[in-house]
Amino acid sequence: MHIQPDRFLADLHKLRSFGASGVGKGVVRRAYSDADLASRDWLAEQISAAGLTPHFDPMGNLFGLADGPSLLIGSHSDTQPEGGWLDGALGVIAALEVARAAKEAGGPPVSMVSFEDEEGRFGVTTGSAVWSGHISQDAADKLTDTTGVPLADARALLGPRVTGPVDMTRFTGFMEMHIEQGPSLDAEGDTIGVVSDIVGIRTMMITFDGQQNHAGTTPMHLRKDAFQGVVAFTSQINDRFRNVVTPRTVWTNGHVSLHPNATSVVPGRATFSMQWRDADTDRLARMEQIIRDTAEEVAADRGLGLTFGDMLWLDPVAMDPTLKGALAAAAETQAPGKWREMPSGASHDATNVAQHLPVAMLFVPSINGISHDFAEDTAEADLVTGLKVLADAVSRLTPAG
Amino acid sequence: MHIQPDRFLADLHKLRSFGASGVGKGVVRRAYSDADLASRDWLAEQISAAGLTPHFDPMGNLFGLADGPSLLIGSHSDTQPEGGWLDGALGVIAALEVARAAKEAGGPPVSMVSFEDEEGRFGVTTGSAVWSGHISQDAADKLTDTTGVPLADARALLGPRVTGPVDMTRFTGFMEMHIEQGPSLDAEGDTIGVVSDIVGIRTMMITFDGQQNHAGTTPMHLRKDAFQGVVAFTSQINDRFRNVVTPRTVWTNGHVSLHPNATSVVPGRATFSMQWRDADTDRLARMEQIIRDTAEEVAADRGLGLTFGDMLWLDPVAMDPTLKGALAAAAETQAPGKWREMPSGASHDATNVAQHLPVAMLFVPSINGISHDFAEDTAEADLVTGLKVLADAVSRLTPAG
Repeated sequence: MHIQPDRFLADLHKLRSFGASGVGKGVVRRAYSDADLASRDWLAEQISAAGLTPHFDPMGNLFGLADGPSLLIGSHSDTQPEGGWLDGALGVIAALEVARAAKEAGGPPVSMVSFEDEEGRFGVTTGSAVWSGHISQDAADKLTDTTGVPLADARALLGPRVTGPVDMTRFTGFMEMHIEQGPSLDAEGDTIGVVSDIVGIRTMMITFDGQQNHAGTTPMHLRKDAFQGVVAFTSQINDRFRNVVTPRTVWTNGHVSLHPNATSVVPGRATFSMQWRDADTDRLARMEQIIRDTAEEVAADRGLGLTFGDMLWLDPVAMDPTLKGALAAAAETQAPGKWREMPSGASHDATNVAQHLPVAMLFVPSINGISHDFAEDTAEADLVTGLKVLADAVSRLTPAG
Repeated sequence: MHIQPDRFLADLHKLRSFGASGVGKGVVRRAYSDADLASRDWLAEQISAAGLTPHFDPMGNLFGLADGPSLLIGSHSDTQPEGGWLDGALGVIAALEVARAAKEAGGPPVSMVSFEDEEGRFGVTTGSAVWSGHISQDAADKLTDTTGVPLADARALLGPRVTGPVDMTRFTGFMEMHIEQGPSLDAEGDTIGVVSDIVGIRTMMITFDGQQNHAGTTPMHLRKDAFQGVVAFTSQINDRFRNVVTPRTVWTNGHVSLHPNATSVVPGRATFSMQWRDADTDRLARMEQIIRDTAEEVAADRGLGLTFGDMLWLDPVAMDPTLKGALAAAAETQAPGKWREMPSGASHDATNVAQHLPVAMLFVPSINGISHDFAEDTAEADLVTGLKVLADAVSRLTPAG
């Protein structure tokens, strides 16, 4: 197959014109918006022109189908409310170019997809979650966006585009190219990341209950200050994790709410989020134990009440060894010495698809690690190298017949 | 003078009936509410019955005036939205009883006052602040409550009650009895606190600016987490204050707000309040220097931006030695070995009056330190001891003519 980088870049910039924010290369293309639907119609035309069959499923996931069993490649083309031009769009247009080049070469058969609502206007990776059966269409239809619009109403805008479901068993595997959305490749000067695992995520809300009191008349030694409990917990967790974590483990206290949250009142209650991510289930469990033990010690030391919320979890997803091996071999050919294996710290459409198909992913660098922002960008040379690695890996997996 | 504890307690319970919450002894008697105005009319009747002259000033501060120069005693009888029955009401009824008993005894001349809106429906200690000239009537009239009602409209409800301003120079000093509103006397088994100083207060908002980032894809060593700056600052402040503070110094981080405050996003900005209180101006300044130095070190260590908000301050107010001495001598007579000197950690009407008159205060215990709550209470024996100390001190300061 003979991929054409100029055609790929031209299509990528054309896709950017649907919902262009006018700020840098930024894009505003929420799932089911006018810009999103217009871009999908344009993409369907490109699929037809490539000799593939365009097919909208009931969620608006747009497939470009090759005849017979095939590998599936792709990503998503919806964006955050203030999105970058690459994000999932890169993986969609790279998939279009590879599937088109394969068709032009007379094989192998390669299908492509642009999933809908990966960015979660309604849920989380909604289009691929419904397609993979992670959530039923009926349940998903009841999800609403922040303005109260239900998914059922939004996807009704698809109208006659929808031609029915797409059977997953027609695909032999799924590969997704994506920007890293983090700073690692850019910081270390690598061009390609071959994903080893999509990390598991644990999220739990923790509440300390103390005694709300007057901040002037309550001596320090008689206080039960719920926020001081949070400070002690967070400090101790940072220490206690050191012997357990790897350089790739992350943990975050992203949300804190105090009651009554007033300058002159000793906080009586503090609720905060504890989220931790790692590719290893056992390590996630060891971290959970440290979190629970530390919170209990802090509460006991300070006479605070303690409540753990439900723990939300996504287990780690290991990439398929064969697909990953093809990406690694392609990376070593196309970017010798400039690639490495790395986990994906973010969840992707591939997480859902992996429940049913062999899956692999590759990353290209995000300049300064910026994503979900109009300033998101990647050097065009790196975009092209990513395209070449994807095409090379596809060739290795599905030799032309 | 011959004070009558039963009459004092009966009046105190009668005042509680104006705005009784029906929950325990709780009271809802906001400044200028129907309950507040009715209670002031009742109080004016008691003042008249005692042979004193009732006088509403333009703010609704209700004086019971003795003839000629006199000592002024009193407090406030408005409450918080969910108030206790004692708070300032105790000091008002104790003042009524002492002024009444003095009048019955033929001297000394003692005047009393119930200030209006000490609890700050509109400002802070609003009635005494206007009376003492700390804020002009015109400026105060523009203050609004949380529902948007301006003070000018609220005090218009006083109608013909108002008979003009009361000249401060007719008073030789001011003494205020109040509940402690903190746990110290109750915890240590003392009955009377003679206030040494009303502590000074410094309040400053501090903001750390970091880099908002994806909580999955951003490695720990590349983060600029604004909340981790707050945790480091608060931990270090607690250590660094140890060699500077006294057991009476307090400091509080009562307010924290994170941006975007989401479980899956590294906090990009964290704003929090730092409030500290002490009776010594030099110590307050040393603490300020430690706060600024520590915040700057944390910001530099972590690559965070740092912004200090304006520092709001109230300087400490020392009690008048003569008035305080009279209270101390009275306390040792009425409650030998069961009293002590202590600072007031809260601000009071006395803070305003002290700008112009010699001032002193005494406290009685708050059970479990609870105040601004329907559950606020004090043993009646302690209320009576407080009344006796106040009367005894008045007698020492103004021997019957």
